[in-house]
Amino acid sequence: MFFLVCFDISDDKKRYRAVKVLKAYGVRVQKSVFECPNLTEHRFVRMKEQLDAVIDHSTDTFRFYFLCRECVARTEFSGIGEPPVTVSYRII
Amino acid sequence: MFFLVCFDISDDKKRYRAVKVLKAYGVRVQKSVFECPNLTEHRFVRMKEQLDAVIDHSTDTFRFYFLCRECVARTEFSGIGEPPVTVSYRII
Repeated sequence: MFFLVCFDISDDKKRYRAVKVLKAYGVRVQKSVFECPNLTEHRFVRMKEQLDAVIDHSTDTFRFYFLCRECVARTEFSGIGEPPVTVSYRII
Repeated sequence: MFFLVCFDISDDKKRYRAVKVLKAYGVRVQKSVFECPNLTEHRFVRMKEQLDAVIDHSTDTFRFYFLCRECVARTEFSGIGEPPVTVSYRII
Protein backbone atom coordinates (compact mmCIF):
# COMPACT_ATOMS: atom_id res chain seq x y z
CA MET A 1 0.00 0.00 0.00
CA PHE A 2 1.15 3.54 -0.76
CA PHE A 3 0.75 6.11 2.00
CA LEU A 4 1.53 9.80 1.98
CA VAL A 5 2.40 11.17 5.43
CA CYS A 6 2.25 14.93 6.03
CA PHE A 7 3.04 16.57 9.35
CA ASP A 8 3.25 19.85 11.24
CA ILE A 9 5.29 19.44 14.44
CA SER A 10 6.29 22.53 16.38
CA ASP A 11 8.98 21.14 18.70
CA ASP A 12 12.35 20.53 16.99
CA LYS A 13 13.18 17.39 19.06
CA LYS A 14 9.77 15.83 18.44
CA ARG A 15 10.03 16.62 14.72
CA TYR A 16 13.54 15.05 14.60
CA ARG A 17 12.23 11.89 16.27
CA ALA A 18 9.21 11.70 13.94
CA VAL A 19 11.43 12.07 10.85
CA LYS A 20 13.67 9.33 12.21
CA VAL A 21 10.66 7.00 12.49
CA LEU A 22 9.41 7.92 9.02
CA LYS A 23 12.78 7.28 7.39
CA ALA A 24 12.34 3.62 8.32
CA TYR A 25 9.09 3.49 6.32
CA GLY A 26 9.45 5.85 3.40
CA VAL A 27 11.15 8.59 1.39
CA ARG A 28 11.17 12.28 2.33
CA VAL A 29 9.94 14.28 -0.67
CA GLN A 30 9.43 17.61 1.05
CA LYS A 31 10.31 19.03 4.48
CA SER A 32 7.11 17.74 6.00
CA VAL A 33 6.00 15.12 3.50
CA PHE A 34 7.01 11.45 3.24
CA GLU A 35 5.99 8.92 0.60
CA CYS A 36 5.74 5.40 1.98
CA PRO A 37 5.31 3.22 -1.10
CA ASN A 38 5.20 -0.29 0.16
CA LEU A 39 3.47 -0.64 3.50
CA THR A 40 1.54 -3.64 4.71
CA GLU A 41 -1.48 -2.93 6.93
CA HIS A 42 0.58 -4.17 9.88
CA ARG A 43 3.53 -1.87 9.12
CA PHE A 44 1.19 1.10 8.64
CA VAL A 45 -0.44 0.51 12.04
CA ARG A 46 3.00 0.06 13.64
CA MET A 47 4.31 3.31 12.05
CA LYS A 48 1.24 5.21 13.22
CA GLU A 49 1.67 3.95 16.79
CA GLN A 50 5.32 5.02 16.81
CA LEU A 51 4.45 8.48 15.46
CA ASP A 52 1.52 8.92 17.83
CA ALA A 53 3.91 8.26 20.73
CA VAL A 54 6.21 11.07 19.59
CA ILE A 55 3.93 14.08 19.01
CA ASP A 56 1.99 16.47 21.23
CA HIS A 57 -1.57 15.75 20.16
CA SER A 58 -2.77 19.17 21.26
CA THR A 59 -0.43 21.14 18.97
CA ASP A 60 0.92 18.82 16.30
CA THR A 61 -0.72 17.05 13.38
CA PHE A 62 -0.18 14.05 11.13
CA ARG A 63 -2.27 13.32 8.04
CA PHE A 64 -2.07 9.87 6.44
CA TYR A 65 -3.34 9.65 2.87
CA PHE A 66 -3.78 6.27 1.21
CA LEU A 67 -3.26 6.31 -2.58
CA CYS A 68 -4.25 3.40 -4.75
CA ARG A 69 -2.05 2.49 -7.74
CA GLU A 70 -4.15 4.53 -10.16
CA CYS A 71 -4.03 7.61 -7.92
CA VAL A 72 -0.26 7.34 -7.43
CA ALA A 73 0.16 7.20 -11.22
CA ARG A 74 -1.60 10.59 -11.54
CA THR A 75 0.83 12.39 -9.23
CA GLU A 76 2.33 15.56 -10.73
CA PHE A 77 4.99 17.93 -9.48
CA SER A 78 6.52 21.32 -10.27
CA GLY A 79 9.96 22.61 -9.46
CA ILE A 80 12.50 20.31 -7.88
CA GLY A 81 11.58 16.74 -7.06
CA GLU A 82 11.17 13.23 -8.39
CA PRO A 83 8.09 11.21 -9.37
CA PRO A 84 6.78 9.04 -6.54
CA VAL A 85 8.87 5.92 -5.87
CA THR A 86 6.55 3.03 -6.45
CA VAL A 87 7.83 -0.45 -5.88
CA SER A 88 6.08 -2.82 -8.22
CA TYR A 89 2.99 -4.41 -6.69
CA ARG A 90 3.93 -7.91 -7.87
CA ILE A 91 2.45 -10.37 -5.40
CA ILE A 92 4.91 -13.22 -4.97
CA MET B 1 -11.75 15.67 -8.42
CA PHE B 2 -9.89 15.76 -5.11
CA PHE B 3 -6.32 17.03 -5.18
CA LEU B 4 -3.81 17.30 -2.37
CA VAL B 5 -1.25 20.07 -2.91
CA CYS B 6 1.99 20.02 -0.90
CA PHE B 7 4.72 22.62 -1.21
CA ASP B 8 8.14 23.73 -0.02
CA ILE B 9 8.79 27.37 -0.94
CA SER B 10 11.80 29.12 0.52
CA ASP B 11 11.00 32.79 -0.20
CA ASP B 12 8.36 34.29 2.11
CA LYS B 13 6.80 36.53 -0.57
CA LYS B 14 6.53 33.66 -3.06
CA ARG B 15 5.05 31.41 -0.38
CA TYR B 16 2.52 34.11 0.54
CA ARG B 17 1.47 34.46 -3.10
CA ALA B 18 1.20 30.69 -3.56
CA VAL B 19 -0.99 30.36 -0.46
CA LYS B 20 -3.18 33.17 -1.77
CA VAL B 21 -3.68 31.25 -5.03
CA LEU B 22 -4.38 27.98 -3.21
CA LYS B 23 -6.99 29.56 -0.93
CA ALA B 24 -9.10 30.12 -4.03
CA TYR B 25 -9.09 26.39 -4.76
CA GLY B 26 -8.99 24.55 -1.44
CA VAL B 27 -8.59 24.33 2.33
CA ARG B 28 -5.30 24.65 4.21
CA VAL B 29 -4.94 21.60 6.46
CA GLN B 30 -1.30 22.04 7.40
CA LYS B 31 1.27 24.80 6.92
CA SER B 32 2.31 23.46 3.53
CA VAL B 33 -0.61 21.22 2.62
CA PHE B 34 -3.92 22.13 0.95
CA GLU B 35 -6.86 19.87 0.20
CA CYS B 36 -8.71 20.89 -2.96
CA PRO B 37 -11.85 18.74 -2.90
CA ASN B 38 -13.79 19.76 -5.93
CA LEU B 39 -11.63 20.65 -8.89
CA THR B 40 -12.57 20.20 -12.50
CA GLU B 41 -9.72 19.27 -14.88
CA HIS B 42 -9.85 22.84 -16.19
CA ARG B 43 -9.59 24.40 -12.72
CA PHE B 44 -6.72 22.07 -11.79
CA VAL B 45 -4.75 23.07 -14.91
CA ARG B 46 -5.51 26.75 -14.24
CA MET B 47 -4.38 26.46 -10.57
CA LYS B 48 -1.16 24.71 -11.61
CA GLU B 49 -0.38 27.44 -14.16
CA GLN B 50 -0.91 30.14 -11.52
CA LEU B 51 1.32 28.32 -9.02
CA ASP B 52 4.02 27.58 -11.60
CA ALA B 53 4.18 31.31 -12.32
CA VAL B 54 4.86 32.10 -8.66
CA ILE B 55 7.67 29.74 -7.63
CA ASP B 56 11.40 29.50 -8.34
CA HIS B 57 11.58 26.17 -10.12
CA SER B 58 15.23 25.67 -9.15
CA THR B 59 14.63 25.80 -5.39
CA ASP B 60 10.93 25.31 -4.70
CA THR B 61 8.63 22.33 -5.12
CA PHE B 62 4.93 21.53 -5.53
CA ARG B 63 3.51 18.03 -5.43
CA PHE B 64 -0.04 17.43 -6.68
CA TYR B 65 -1.66 14.18 -5.55
CA PHE B 66 -4.95 13.07 -7.07
CA LEU B 67 -7.13 11.01 -4.69
CA CYS B 68 -10.16 9.11 -5.90
CA ARG B 69 -13.26 8.91 -3.69
CA GLU B 70 -12.21 5.59 -2.18
CA CYS B 71 -8.72 6.88 -1.34
CA VAL B 72 -10.05 10.06 0.23
CA ALA B 73 -12.34 7.97 2.43
CA ARG B 74 -9.30 6.13 3.85
CA THR B 75 -7.58 9.31 5.05
CA GLU B 76 -6.54 9.22 8.71
CA PHE B 77 -5.05 11.85 10.97
CA SER B 78 -3.46 12.20 14.41
CA GLY B 79 -3.31 15.25 16.66
CA ILE B 80 -5.16 18.38 15.66
CA GLY B 81 -7.09 18.51 12.40
CA GLU B 82 -10.32 17.61 10.66
CA PRO B 83 -11.24 14.83 8.24
CA PRO B 84 -10.90 15.84 4.59
CA VAL B 85 -13.68 18.12 3.35
CA THR B 86 -15.34 16.23 0.54
CA VAL B 87 -18.16 17.86 -1.32
CA SER B 88 -20.55 15.25 -2.55
CA TYR B 89 -19.77 14.07 -6.05
CA ARG B 90 -23.36 14.33 -7.22
CA ILE B 91 -23.28 14.98 -10.95
CA ILE B 92 -26.12 17.35 -11.79
